[in-house]
Amino acid sequence: MSERIWTAALLVIGDEILSGRTQDRNVAQIGTWLNVQGIRLREVRIVADDQDAIVEAVNILRARNDYLFTTGGIGPTHDDITVDAIAAALGVSVVVHPEARAILEGYYAARGGINEARLRMARVPEGAELIPNRYSGAPGIRFGNIYIMAGVPHITAGMLSELTGTLEGGAPLLSRTIGCMVAESEIADLLGQMERTHEGCQIGSYPFFREGKVGANFVVRATDQARLDGCVDDLLAALRAANFDPVEGGI
Amino acid sequence: MSERIWTAALLVIGDEILSGRTQDRNVAQIGTWLNVQGIRLREVRIVADDQDAIVEAVNILRARNDYLFTTGGIGPTHDDITVDAIAAALGVSVVVHPEARAILEGYYAARGGINEARLRMARVPEGAELIPNRYSGAPGIRFGNIYIMAGVPHITAGMLSELTGTLEGGAPLLSRTIGCMVAESEIADLLGQMERTHEGCQIGSYPFFREGKVGANFVVRATDQARLDGCVDDLLAALRAANFDPVEGGI
Repeated sequence: MSERIWTAALLVIGDEILSGRTQDRNVAQIGTWLNVQGIRLREVRIVADDQDAIVEAVNILRARNDYLFTTGGIGPTHDDITVDAIAAALGVSVVVHPEARAILEGYYAARGGINEARLRMARVPEGAELIPNRYSGAPGIRFGNIYIMAGVPHITAGMLSELTGTLEGGAPLLSRTIGCMVAESEIADLLGQMERTHEGCQIGSYPFFREGKVGANFVVRATDQARLDGCVDDLLAALRAANFDPVEGGI
Repeated sequence: MSERIWTAALLVIGDEILSGRTQDRNVAQIGTWLNVQGIRLREVRIVADDQDAIVEAVNILRARNDYLFTTGGIGPTHDDITVDAIAAALGVSVVVHPEARAILEGYYAARGGINEARLRMARVPEGAELIPNRYSGAPGIRFGNIYIMAGVPHITAGMLSELTGTLEGGAPLLSRTIGCMVAESEIADLLGQMERTHEGCQIGSYPFFREGKVGANFVVRATDQARLDGCVDDLLAALRAANFDPVEGGI
């Protein structure tokens, strides 16, 4: 069970996320998508529209993960500096990608025509490839192990679906959830013991408080289905033995 | 206008955020709250329940920001390792805080009594103070410029409200929003020029697509009300002059 684990990092770029104006949706969206590709989202950073902050994060995260995704800052306005900052991090020039230019000219032909601001969205770090954008013309960008994506979640989703199945990964992380109307602090020992005795399984405990009652969902994760099922079976049996009435699938 | 800017970092701790199982709410909640305290959320990291990852992030973030907030990993179960990891980062021991112990004994008196797992939530880095938790007993923890908070958003909110007004900050960041049914790429030049000619103001452009039409909200931010209003007035005038029909307050 010493299989290689493939990891990714995500860099979310944008003042609007840090100020609280915009609720990020890309961490959960990309984390979920990566699991299906057999890749673990290991770390996320959120930085402002600030070149130094982007450069620092890009160079650390791309070096220590198999993949680095970024979201945000690739639009047409003055605060969209992601491409320039990543090119600076890589030590390469920014060039207009001819195919991106053609895509934008086509997209904007019926929308007022191309202009200087719109042409900004054809700029890429020299040597990059494009990631198609089925919704709004301006493509995403791939350079080596870096995937530069839009920040608007449904546009990001379209780009992710173009990439589905194209990234090398390992075994997808499987999970099963058990819910219980019990305070997690009542069965903390049991959970710890279950995790220790089931190699290759990890158990997360997520408490909730609803309609005046406390409960928790226990998420068991493993890459091996048989190990996962064995751990879930044992946990269900232990919870039933203690009359905690566990619910498969979670509450 | 060279006033001191107070900054904070946020470290979100939890496998469930990275896996996509749980949608984070604390970045936006804490970013918004910090603005009101006159403090900017400058950077966020999200890491797994992994001691090395927590230690690395804590030591970098606490050194280069006025404040470091953490959320998650302070519950009673085996995957709650935040206190131990932060104590390791600080090079101090973990001790049971007598006041936290008393709080938990009181809280659990009518809930099955204290046990070893529940007592885990009284453990703090040696020398720490407590942050009251009005909802579920187990307190948050302050050590120097580090604020260790719960991960469940409504419990975090209760802790934040205890801290309101207690942190030294600068002038709150003010903002006003203007919405327009225009593609941001049509007025990118105008926005860049407005920002350059209004010192102390920053303009963010946030496009949207609704009911078949494109539009954008422009958020002007400044710490000085007169400068903010001056920039907004000029931007409104320019948008009206171009017949773009701007909407104060945003769309």
